[in-house]
Amino acid sequence: MLKLMKTFTSIINGDRLNLSINELAHIGQLPNGGVKRIAYSPEDILARQLIQKWMVEAGMTVRIDAAGNMIGTYAGIKGAPALVTGSHIDTVPSGGRYDGTLGVLAGIEVARVLQENSIQLAHPFEVVVFTDEESSMIGCKAIAGTYNHDPEFYRRSDGTSIQKSLEAVGGNWKKLATAKRSKADIAAFVELHVEQGGVLETIGKEIGVVQGIVSQTRYAIAITGRPNHAGTTPMTMRRDALVAAAQIILAVNNLATQTPGDQVATVGSLNVWPNAANIVPGRVDTSLDIRDLSLNHVDNLVEQLQQQLIAIATTTQTEIKMTPTLRVEGTLAAPQIQDTIVETCQQLGLTYDHLPSRASHDAQEMGKITDMGMIFVPSSAGISHSEEEYTSPEQCTQGTQVLFNTLLQLDALY
Amino acid sequence: MLKLMKTFTSIINGDRLNLSINELAHIGQLPNGGVKRIAYSPEDILARQLIQKWMVEAGMTVRIDAAGNMIGTYAGIKGAPALVTGSHIDTVPSGGRYDGTLGVLAGIEVARVLQENSIQLAHPFEVVVFTDEESSMIGCKAIAGTYNHDPEFYRRSDGTSIQKSLEAVGGNWKKLATAKRSKADIAAFVELHVEQGGVLETIGKEIGVVQGIVSQTRYAIAITGRPNHAGTTPMTMRRDALVAAAQIILAVNNLATQTPGDQVATVGSLNVWPNAANIVPGRVDTSLDIRDLSLNHVDNLVEQLQQQLIAIATTTQTEIKMTPTLRVEGTLAAPQIQDTIVETCQQLGLTYDHLPSRASHDAQEMGKITDMGMIFVPSSAGISHSEEEYTSPEQCTQGTQVLFNTLLQLDALY
Repeated sequence: MLKLMKTFTSIINGDRLNLSINELAHIGQLPNGGVKRIAYSPEDILARQLIQKWMVEAGMTVRIDAAGNMIGTYAGIKGAPALVTGSHIDTVPSGGRYDGTLGVLAGIEVARVLQENSIQLAHPFEVVVFTDEESSMIGCKAIAGTYNHDPEFYRRSDGTSIQKSLEAVGGNWKKLATAKRSKADIAAFVELHVEQGGVLETIGKEIGVVQGIVSQTRYAIAITGRPNHAGTTPMTMRRDALVAAAQIILAVNNLATQTPGDQVATVGSLNVWPNAANIVPGRVDTSLDIRDLSLNHVDNLVEQLQQQLIAIATTTQTEIKMTPTLRVEGTLAAPQIQDTIVETCQQLGLTYDHLPSRASHDAQEMGKITDMGMIFVPSSAGISHSEEEYTSPEQCTQGTQVLFNTLLQLDALY
Repeated sequence: MLKLMKTFTSIINGDRLNLSINELAHIGQLPNGGVKRIAYSPEDILARQLIQKWMVEAGMTVRIDAAGNMIGTYAGIKGAPALVTGSHIDTVPSGGRYDGTLGVLAGIEVARVLQENSIQLAHPFEVVVFTDEESSMIGCKAIAGTYNHDPEFYRRSDGTSIQKSLEAVGGNWKKLATAKRSKADIAAFVELHVEQGGVLETIGKEIGVVQGIVSQTRYAIAITGRPNHAGTTPMTMRRDALVAAAQIILAVNNLATQTPGDQVATVGSLNVWPNAANIVPGRVDTSLDIRDLSLNHVDNLVEQLQQQLIAIATTTQTEIKMTPTLRVEGTLAAPQIQDTIVETCQQLGLTYDHLPSRASHDAQEMGKITDMGMIFVPSSAGISHSEEEYTSPEQCTQGTQVLFNTLLQLDALY
């Protein structure tokens, strides 16, 4: 087992890492520097071929499971369980070069460093390219055993079956259950990812120690008042659904900003009927999205809001109906892995802070079967899922250094 | 000149009046009792023929001016100026039996009563059927000289020219200026109309003494924030255009409800971009409609609101732009006519209250050339521009009685 020292800061080859990021970005590159590499597309398949080549060059053996996940293994002194890292290389239709890709290429860079320094860890070390993170998340869900068993659930909008999709990347729907893994098989999972938000940049920290992937609930809120002539209806005789909606929007915002904690709450969609300047709104349909690490906390917030809705309905003389439309329980990061990332940052002299991930990641499913941790590096201006997404070469290198050191420490701990 | 006494309550023939209302409602009658009698349509023309017949039977001479206004005159002891009443018989596509029609048929009933009682007023008494009140208001605007001189302004959506439209009802666009009248010609104008709102019913009064037709301003409000991921964007880093919009909606509502006065203010239309449950709203386009008797008061309210918008823009970190889209100066009712209506109600033992008209009426243009007054009777549940519009036969009779007595008093006053 290795003793970690300051000198590890120089072990990661930042130039090599960033050259790989640039090279992969050519596959599916958009005119303005962004990337379009939809899961199962020819670009996805081309990129996988390049990744496989790099994995092999880094001394890894490569296998593809039934979910199409590409798994590179760098042998350890002992057998299973493995230390696993990874992320995805598929993108949204108009995506950036870092979301997902950084986590995969950082894993390969870790293997390259192990290889060139003739380091062998106690545990096998794996790098996973998860299938279709941006849409179905079928790759990580197959490994966690949390996928939907109905193949129609995964049929794509162009009609392609999941069987055909998976075959394109070497998978097989009929054998999907064989992709399932467990704690006995995976000692710990650590994912490096760009933040996709602006917290680190705003607070001026280099590394984010992720506390977990948040729970999320979503509701549809329907407000029924009475449409009326905006001229002839005195203020006191109105049942204005939009005035009620405005009170709800501010109640949601106050709840999220004034309750202690890191919760976020959003009213993102709102439609007014009949939506004419000279008619008092008769009906409003709107949405509520609340996220926090703790699903209990989310439920408490919703309960507080529902109390307020009763009061709003009374004062505005409207009917307010709130219907759940989404409920996802989050995944906490293992405290031991968070502590290890913190120690690593301290050793490397990198600034850091704890924060939740409020976006989905492959790690959220991996955390359901084993100890999970995530490392964030800053996203410029918090922009993601956009061709403008940017994380500097230095930041990519720093994140990969933290991943490397963390994995080595975990190799000793697990 | 006549001395008014309590006995006038029995002079109006309520049965005859309401029979006329029913008979006219057959022209353009909808299956459920409503009326569709669009201006210039075959139904409008048929209805005008019946009105003309009734005017002649009531001892009136009938002429049609260049705007297609049908003017029945019951001769007075003296010549001009005339005492004038009237309203319109055209309807919205799915309208009721009372809006406009009551005012015309009440005028004819007044003439019938004068005729059967051999009463001759000092002034000539006119009943006017104004052309196209529900859309262009070209009839009253031609008389007031406030019409738009561009014929294209009046072209209908089916392509019909205003020349052709007016010809269908006996008018002539080329001679429209000849329809103009003045104070020398019209001593006073009094219009009886259904309230089209729910104030009288709510306060339990039989007659509304209209203070004037309100001024109206309308604005487009554009709020620009920053669209962002509803998960990864902490509350403190948001520039949420919908939160700003909610504050504006409540500011508008508070201003209208908490400022002394009868003003109404409405945010009726609101569109969110990108309008997705998981995206912090980046832009909101909304509307503001403010109405009050005094345009100065409306402007003061708008000025107060603009001060609040500056504060809202700062706290929400959004840009807010307010653009005027409509500005209509209202018309005040002559105090002398309001007082006469009040006296009449007191003599007749009818309950009354003063109120503004927040909907448009032919009276608003007539008030620009002469002393104007309006009498309202209640609309059931405040419903108007709907097949469900209803004012009881007794209420129609009461309103007509008030019109009759008022005209007789004005005959002495002017």
